[in-house]
Amino acid sequence: MDHPHTSTPFNQDLEEVRQRVLAMGGLVEQQIVDATRALMDNDGILGEEVSRKDFKINQLEVLIDEECSGILARRQPAARDLRMIYAVIKTITDLERIGDEAAKVGRMAANLASQEHGQPSAMHQLGHLSRHVAQMVRGALDAFARTDAEAALGVTSEDFVVDREYEALMRQCITFMMEDPRAIRRVMDIIWSARALERIGDHARNIAQYVIYFVTGKDVRHIGQEAMEREVLKPQASSSPRT
Amino acid sequence: MDHPHTSTPFNQDLEEVRQRVLAMGGLVEQQIVDATRALMDNDGILGEEVSRKDFKINQLEVLIDEECSGILARRQPAARDLRMIYAVIKTITDLERIGDEAAKVGRMAANLASQEHGQPSAMHQLGHLSRHVAQMVRGALDAFARTDAEAALGVTSEDFVVDREYEALMRQCITFMMEDPRAIRRVMDIIWSARALERIGDHARNIAQYVIYFVTGKDVRHIGQEAMEREVLKPQASSSPRT
Repeated sequence: MDHPHTSTPFNQDLEEVRQRVLAMGGLVEQQIVDATRALMDNDGILGEEVSRKDFKINQLEVLIDEECSGILARRQPAARDLRMIYAVIKTITDLERIGDEAAKVGRMAANLASQEHGQPSAMHQLGHLSRHVAQMVRGALDAFARTDAEAALGVTSEDFVVDREYEALMRQCITFMMEDPRAIRRVMDIIWSARALERIGDHARNIAQYVIYFVTGKDVRHIGQEAMEREVLKPQASSSPRT
Repeated sequence: MDHPHTSTPFNQDLEEVRQRVLAMGGLVEQQIVDATRALMDNDGILGEEVSRKDFKINQLEVLIDEECSGILARRQPAARDLRMIYAVIKTITDLERIGDEAAKVGRMAANLASQEHGQPSAMHQLGHLSRHVAQMVRGALDAFARTDAEAALGVTSEDFVVDREYEALMRQCITFMMEDPRAIRRVMDIIWSARALERIGDHARNIAQYVIYFVTGKDVRHIGQEAMEREVLKPQASSSPRT
């Protein structure tokens, strides 16, 4: 091979991409945290700021895609290295979309701050949902950083819990609207925020699944949590990390 | 090079992937058409069927990703061929998500069919929105099939129109809910359907942007429609198709 994967420049390239994905992930996490704080503290200025900062995440997506296609062209990675690049190409799309959703939450926070205060109990549950999906994103990025398929599996299992929380909040919001139709616009902002957070949970699950693919070589999308667990937890007898 | 891109098996691999993407796209289009028909005809059985059939799209996503990573490993494509594979890897993620959104619309149609009939005028606008985004998806797939960046540009410009239609429909739905709180649950199903359709428009725009990247080598995400037009319509003096 012209470019054996043990070559120093090649490993440097991979490490650089890895670091950039983690930097992009860090930005995305911060956006979720700030959007949540904007909602909870009724802070419209912070909400607007989150929405404005989204372009930084977009820029990183474009940059990392450029680096990945450069590595594919120059280094022709194989086996585990190729799986890493493949996982990165998919992961950054989800990170970018998480950024979009966080920006939406920021805009909703700004909307809500410009009105009378929302339903306190819904806000409480929204804060809970938000912390939960932020934790999932953090978990997926940690699993990527440590190439830990079992940790990734923990993230995918959380998605079901998040979906239940989201559904409970939705039912509550619909009840609020029926009881007080004048609150409909305000409750709709809460509904859109909850929806954005639920989507962030889905994207975190996707990233966790790409980590599992990268580490084990198994594509575990669309197979359900139990089948995923069988794939990840079964003894990896014959697979060595670099092949 | 070990595997020059003019080798027949290589071209066969690329052609096979291209055909499969178009097949996946065809399925996705049919799902949108069927979901729309289920909504318009109040046909709950068809709605359920759309939701059930989504797994076929998921299977194609997994298969095409497998083929693409195989091509990257075995054939080490460069230049335009690499861009095509890159565009395919990104495109099938969006096609899969369009499938998810169509399945959601199918479920909403089934929900609505089990209740009294919805707001006729909202349903009319929903049908219009649905046909519009189906047209965008068709346009993006045609642009991919014909490797036509200008046609792709036409698709991205439609996304703005779809967003305006969606916003008008949203305002109307909120008015309905305020006027008749008993209709809130029903109107929420219309709102979720409209949201899913609006997202389908976004995914079609993404696919069109990948086509532009594949054809011109320019990453036109996040730069706005005018800048995109400048990139696509400027004379491509020095670029030859295979380099």
